[in-house]
Amino acid sequence: MGRARARTRRAGRAAVNHHPATPARNGSTLHPLRAKRLGIETQHEPIVFTHADCPVARSEGFAARAQVQLSAGGRSALATLYQVSSDIVAVDEVGLSETVWHRLGVSEGTVIKVRHPQPLDSMSFVRAKVYGHRLDAERLGTIIKDVVAERYSDVQLAAFITAFSSQPVQLAEMVALTRAMVEAGDRLTWPGTPIVDKHSVGGLPANRTTPIVVAIVAAAGLVIPKTSSRAITSPAGTADAMETMTPVDLDIPAMRRVVEREGGCVVWGGSVRLSPADDILIRVERALDLDSPAQLVASVLSKKIAAGSTHVLLDLPVGPTAKLRTAEEAAELSAHLQAVAAAFNLKVRPLLGDGSQPVGIGLGPALEARDVLAVLRRDREAPEDLRSRAVRLAGALLELGGAVAEGGGEAVAAEILADGRALTKFMGICEAQGGFREPPIAPLQHVIQSPVSGLLSGIDNRLLARVAKLAGAPRSPSAGLELHVKLGDRVERGQPLMTLHGESPGELEYAWDFAKANPGVLQVSPR
Amino acid sequence: MGRARARTRRAGRAAVNHHPATPARNGSTLHPLRAKRLGIETQHEPIVFTHADCPVARSEGFAARAQVQLSAGGRSALATLYQVSSDIVAVDEVGLSETVWHRLGVSEGTVIKVRHPQPLDSMSFVRAKVYGHRLDAERLGTIIKDVVAERYSDVQLAAFITAFSSQPVQLAEMVALTRAMVEAGDRLTWPGTPIVDKHSVGGLPANRTTPIVVAIVAAAGLVIPKTSSRAITSPAGTADAMETMTPVDLDIPAMRRVVEREGGCVVWGGSVRLSPADDILIRVERALDLDSPAQLVASVLSKKIAAGSTHVLLDLPVGPTAKLRTAEEAAELSAHLQAVAAAFNLKVRPLLGDGSQPVGIGLGPALEARDVLAVLRRDREAPEDLRSRAVRLAGALLELGGAVAEGGGEAVAAEILADGRALTKFMGICEAQGGFREPPIAPLQHVIQSPVSGLLSGIDNRLLARVAKLAGAPRSPSAGLELHVKLGDRVERGQPLMTLHGESPGELEYAWDFAKANPGVLQVSPR
Repeated sequence: MGRARARTRRAGRAAVNHHPATPARNGSTLHPLRAKRLGIETQHEPIVFTHADCPVARSEGFAARAQVQLSAGGRSALATLYQVSSDIVAVDEVGLSETVWHRLGVSEGTVIKVRHPQPLDSMSFVRAKVYGHRLDAERLGTIIKDVVAERYSDVQLAAFITAFSSQPVQLAEMVALTRAMVEAGDRLTWPGTPIVDKHSVGGLPANRTTPIVVAIVAAAGLVIPKTSSRAITSPAGTADAMETMTPVDLDIPAMRRVVEREGGCVVWGGSVRLSPADDILIRVERALDLDSPAQLVASVLSKKIAAGSTHVLLDLPVGPTAKLRTAEEAAELSAHLQAVAAAFNLKVRPLLGDGSQPVGIGLGPALEARDVLAVLRRDREAPEDLRSRAVRLAGALLELGGAVAEGGGEAVAAEILADGRALTKFMGICEAQGGFREPPIAPLQHVIQSPVSGLLSGIDNRLLARVAKLAGAPRSPSAGLELHVKLGDRVERGQPLMTLHGESPGELEYAWDFAKANPGVLQVSPR
Repeated sequence: MGRARARTRRAGRAAVNHHPATPARNGSTLHPLRAKRLGIETQHEPIVFTHADCPVARSEGFAARAQVQLSAGGRSALATLYQVSSDIVAVDEVGLSETVWHRLGVSEGTVIKVRHPQPLDSMSFVRAKVYGHRLDAERLGTIIKDVVAERYSDVQLAAFITAFSSQPVQLAEMVALTRAMVEAGDRLTWPGTPIVDKHSVGGLPANRTTPIVVAIVAAAGLVIPKTSSRAITSPAGTADAMETMTPVDLDIPAMRRVVEREGGCVVWGGSVRLSPADDILIRVERALDLDSPAQLVASVLSKKIAAGSTHVLLDLPVGPTAKLRTAEEAAELSAHLQAVAAAFNLKVRPLLGDGSQPVGIGLGPALEARDVLAVLRRDREAPEDLRSRAVRLAGALLELGGAVAEGGGEAVAAEILADGRALTKFMGICEAQGGFREPPIAPLQHVIQSPVSGLLSGIDNRLLARVAKLAGAPRSPSAGLELHVKLGDRVERGQPLMTLHGESPGELEYAWDFAKANPGVLQVSPR
């Protein structure tokens, strides 16, 4: 039995049945699909839908959940394709989620080409990293460029993030990752130095020192062009709180005008495209609740380097339910941050602080803004912990930026706050950003009283943040909670522990139910 | 300024505005949602949709892409929630993907409760693993139970898989993972021993020895209740090929009847629930193209242990584009498999083979089935490589199962095939499974000829599999390709290299385009 003959067994018959049509160079141009907007919010995850009988999906051989490339009018986007047997899309339509709709910039009915994406070659570098190899600057650069181009699925991003968390950190790799993230986005430049900045490593609710620190430092004559984030998993980000008082959605020219006039600003970082890889990676890191030192360092420093900062103060709250659990963890992170920053000629100073409980009274955008205003206005009822923390940070930043000699910063900061210059500067910044308004007050409030008398022995920051979010923060600006007690306080039965604020009865009920079901939120030990 | 006084600043006002309604015990019972079937195919990924103005989503505070728990009529399912602003769902509806629809077993309009899921506590064990800790049997058991309950998102599964791939393998952990996977599903038991089985570590197209091996071994009197998989990333799984000849979708009682009558079967493993965790993990492993030894071992062995096997032959094809690239890799994997199998009193024998090129002529369900039939029928044109490989495997399995003395297995297997007993047994098995039919032939075929004369110096198994899939395999049973040449063959210009088979012109065109654009599929070196 000849093998060669055996293997051509069916070839002869095939030649007879040979399909005569000339294959098109690109099958999808034969079957254009029309765009349909499905209005699906996916938090940046690009997903699209075709009908199960769609000829393009059939001829391209797309399986359910295939990665596909869409293009229209010179723009393109990658997306995960789902197949649909109902009438939400017709056979000649492709249904787009909001992310894809905006990325392609199409209109209803625009012709879209859908095809297999180019292979994601840089995933082989990720696999090499998983298997224990170091990544050099070039490979990390390729990966990060593909991440920013949104060519990575969330599952692939999870592998990248997990690989970094699974293996010991190496300085050269952290520097390379930071550099790759800086270079994959825009960079701001400012005339003159120093350009000062601050960053707080999260995990502590409220801690809304930034607007106060910016006001004090700018009033002292330093330049502090601050970009802040919105909440990802917390009840409010600095940008959310600031937005209850003034517009924060400024583009780069508008931000420049504010900084030129006032020496400082507090704008939302999302409207400037600094280290966009960080925004993508952080979403998956939060979903996994994973933080590798390498990624935390690259995340923090890439944003600062891209923002043109030269001197950065790092606020590192340490506490049992904060991101940094112990002083050792904070020290290790500080060492990494300083080593990597040095490679970029960036001066950083870490400042450890108490992270055992929220700072201030309010949790939620408007409630945190009210705390900020109370401190700036020197209200008798202003939260002392927020005031003293902001003064300490501002003082350290004044020293780091060279405005005040070492050891004298805190006194100067306290004076600028006390004599009203900080308030004047803050109002000037708000005016420059588009005008000041008072933060709103929630229409619905509910006081939660202590069921027993005793000592407040524990606060779970994560559960407390959850209560504020269930009450509607940050989506409803006035929602959240006020915390009326601090660790170590003597509490009487029936005494108010916290007040829930909400804009809808349902949300308030949910927050209340959750707080009742989780007594660990605030632990009162009878004594 | 008294801190206690400061912190009750707004409490007094709050008490006045105190929202008087009594909170409901469960907000979602106040606003039931009606099920709407959206017909979205997601390959087991559970996704659901609510309207942006849905009162439940608002009162529960669900963000876009929140994980939610749905329940109806005593059944529940976890899913990722997307919010929609178009009319594909109404404000009082929840739109279900097919996975969720079937898991809940609901009808159009059924009332569904949607709420926050219980926290996934076992994710903390995954994080511990990521940070380099070993997982004990109890923790692995908890993780795997949650995986089988579909409480893990794909992103979380990716972290679990990556963590295992990033770290050195330890025997105790592999045993614990295997045991956890066995215990999270059903187990088959059979009267008497031995119960023999075979498994091929994939990556090599076609290699469809299983139906032949089962026929030979069962004809020799051994019991071989074989469950096989469908294609995940290949042009055909054994179950797909077998299904072109006989039903494979048998439940456990039906499978038992076949095995009692014939001593063997070839059924689809998906209809019996053996090691269901493996089916879930493997989907994400394939998406990442990651395989850790621990997961490969647990995947292979958990299925075999759950199937009640006592003696398993492992077919390990080694080649540059197979899963196992070198003999060292195969030896290392064999050692792991044998060490873990020993802990379960399971005998395994690895058999290394040539994995440099496809086995047989056809790639695709019906084309591979035709190769199998040609061997069983002793056609003069039957592919010799498939015949000899199947005989070698069957011989080794006869020895492993004690039916033939060591060294004599291959001769006995060859005899059983040559004298027609294997064909008779195969037809008996097909009859018992529901009847035999001839595999279909594709209506459209296209021959690809060699553009040059020379020597066939390379075959890229992965690209070749891709061509067969673009032609429509395995979705279109008769689609795929026939390969007319083998490595080292002398090829003349114009000689047929392969014949594409398809059920639609578009798919055939795509396969053709891809083959032309990728000359590395078959490398002909001029000489």
